[in-house]
Amino acid sequence: SRSIDLAVIPGDGIGQEVVAEGLKVLSAVLPQDVKLETKEYDFGARRYRATGETLTDADLDSLKAHDAILLGAIGDPSVPSGVLERGFLLKLRFAFDHHVNLRPSKLLPGVATPLAGQPEIDFVVVREGTEGPYTGNGGTIRTGTEHEVATEVSVNTAYGVERVVRDAFARAQARPRKKLTLVHKNNVLTFAGHLWTNIFNKVAEEFPEVTTEYIHVDAATIYLVTDPARFDVIVTDNLFGDIITDLAAAVSGGIGVAASGNINPARTYPSMFEPVHGSAPDIAGQGKADPTATVLSVALLLRHLGYDTEADRVDTAVAADLTERVDLPPRTTAEIGDALVGRVTG
Amino acid sequence: SRSIDLAVIPGDGIGQEVVAEGLKVLSAVLPQDVKLETKEYDFGARRYRATGETLTDADLDSLKAHDAILLGAIGDPSVPSGVLERGFLLKLRFAFDHHVNLRPSKLLPGVATPLAGQPEIDFVVVREGTEGPYTGNGGTIRTGTEHEVATEVSVNTAYGVERVVRDAFARAQARPRKKLTLVHKNNVLTFAGHLWTNIFNKVAEEFPEVTTEYIHVDAATIYLVTDPARFDVIVTDNLFGDIITDLAAAVSGGIGVAASGNINPARTYPSMFEPVHGSAPDIAGQGKADPTATVLSVALLLRHLGYDTEADRVDTAVAADLTERVDLPPRTTAEIGDALVGRVTG
Ligand SMILES: CC(C)[C@H](C(=O)O)[C@@H](O)C(=O)O
Ligand SMILES: CC(C)[C@H](C(=O)O)[C@@H](O)C(=O)O
Repeated sequence: SRSIDLAVIPGDGIGQEVVAEGLKVLSAVLPQDVKLETKEYDFGARRYRATGETLTDADLDSLKAHDAILLGAIGDPSVPSGVLERGFLLKLRFAFDHHVNLRPSKLLPGVATPLAGQPEIDFVVVREGTEGPYTGNGGTIRTGTEHEVATEVSVNTAYGVERVVRDAFARAQARPRKKLTLVHKNNVLTFAGHLWTNIFNKVAEEFPEVTTEYIHVDAATIYLVTDPARFDVIVTDNLFGDIITDLAAAVSGGIGVAASGNINPARTYPSMFEPVHGSAPDIAGQGKADPTATVLSVALLLRHLGYDTEADRVDTAVAADLTERVDLPPRTTAEIGDALVGRVTG
Repeated sequence: SRSIDLAVIPGDGIGQEVVAEGLKVLSAVLPQDVKLETKEYDFGARRYRATGETLTDADLDSLKAHDAILLGAIGDPSVPSGVLERGFLLKLRFAFDHHVNLRPSKLLPGVATPLAGQPEIDFVVVREGTEGPYTGNGGTIRTGTEHEVATEVSVNTAYGVERVVRDAFARAQARPRKKLTLVHKNNVLTFAGHLWTNIFNKVAEEFPEVTTEYIHVDAATIYLVTDPARFDVIVTDNLFGDIITDLAAAVSGGIGVAASGNINPARTYPSMFEPVHGSAPDIAGQGKADPTATVLSVALLLRHLGYDTEADRVDTAVAADLTERVDLPPRTTAEIGDALVGRVTG
């Protein structure tokens, strides 16, 4: 008999509320014979305030044993900027080698977008997750004085770039349009830019059916608002991916529906699935948060674990709910979750 | 009697065409007693192909003698990515210490925007121009092998950050809304992020009338499409500024109307004014390019040299032209230039 052993990290703020709904939908959609086991972890701001700990070696050891991780959101205004981001979120992505950060963008019929004319949007960003300016390399000298110098070092390796580029080509190859766009800034960041571009061109030879293009990150933001239909799969570095996926979320239905997977394709460690949004302390505890991004992250999780039919059912349920919600009065977090449970079981 | 000694760098592609119109408008708007002298320089792809030179010490010496520089666009597909960008554009910005890269965004009534509902947009981005990931620091080892490592070092100094932050506060102070937003990614790029944030908070004390806020760069792209009216003045680092000003241009009328000034406020070297767009080789030589961004850059140039009344007249002429063009058939580059000449002299 099959089973899923899931680590659940609700985290801070609305993280608690949205993860509860994600789990409801996950339980509902799984076939009877699949045993779902969950273990909840109390990582985040509360634990940091209580113990000073963000993510210990023992924590990593426990998490390692699971099949996958579902995360709500981490972060709270009471904790200085950077502490939980570097000490928990990024530490976990790096420790578990989550080098494929997958962020799909699909604008569904009827869903509100800030763009005029309801353009067609259906692309996925493959953001590198373990290198670039996110490594934490760098430092300061003469700290706090008028002579301070602060550096940030973007580290890019052929090994790290090639594996994520190859993953993106494979994803492009598997989609009907078979198009892959490299987004970088190779005219200014020439060291990293040439590495990315050369590897992209080299791997392209293995995928002759995939149409390729290169776009500078600044120009990419223009296309994301004037011609998002041009994109099918985008591959990009960690920081550029961070920036353009927030914009992509904004134009394709908002941050409330943007899902992500922090994937270790080699499966040497569990992959982690989380909404792109944060902990939204301003609306936390009010039942106002939209659990859709978490539920869509559950679909990515299901697909990663091989439950494709179930993932499709979740995606279909969300699409129907989003399209119909235009005519509905606002619902609570739990009401949206219940509606989705109804759809996946119905 | 007064005079302006202007270095003119038409550059490549549509650069030639748009600069011609910018100069027409500049001549037309200047009072009779102001003598305009121009010297044209042939920098860009043609010279690079002919001589292998991008910008020599002798070139910098000649340029140094002028009151200001008007540039069209530099870049051509025949030149490898990075050569002219690093060898000319960035070299000039760094050599002449253009640390305030000024990029206003204003959506005029009737002007097309990809955003639904014609939101109010009227803000200016103060982008740092001489530090950050643009310094060219970094390198590669094991170049071209499967073990290559490529680094890019973002260099940030208290000196460099403070002067641009202070400039931005002064600009915010001079505007009716008096609001300044710092855009960075201080939760991940903690070394540079804390330097920027600390200096921003310190300088804020000198400007008690200015309302301040901090936004992560990823979230800033969301606000730029969902709530651009929230911005008045934005100050940010070189790379984030590059990215968000292209997006800002896209939402506020397009890259065809986005102006910029590369300013040395200490006036130790001439400042340079240029449209944000590139050389657009696909439409070069066809009289199709919109000279508006160049003409608006001429307005920034006039303001920098103290010709405020004339700058206002150029801005007003452009605003009127943009608002009325909605009902006009497409015009050539020269026709738009002539129309603007008519308006500034009329
Ligand atoms: C919270 C932060 C560390 C994170 C990132 O920058 O990756 C977030 O913005 C994201 O996109 O998941
Ligand atoms: C061409 C390039 C070097 C330049 C930059 O990145 O600054 C351009 O994109 C700009 O914004 O002026």
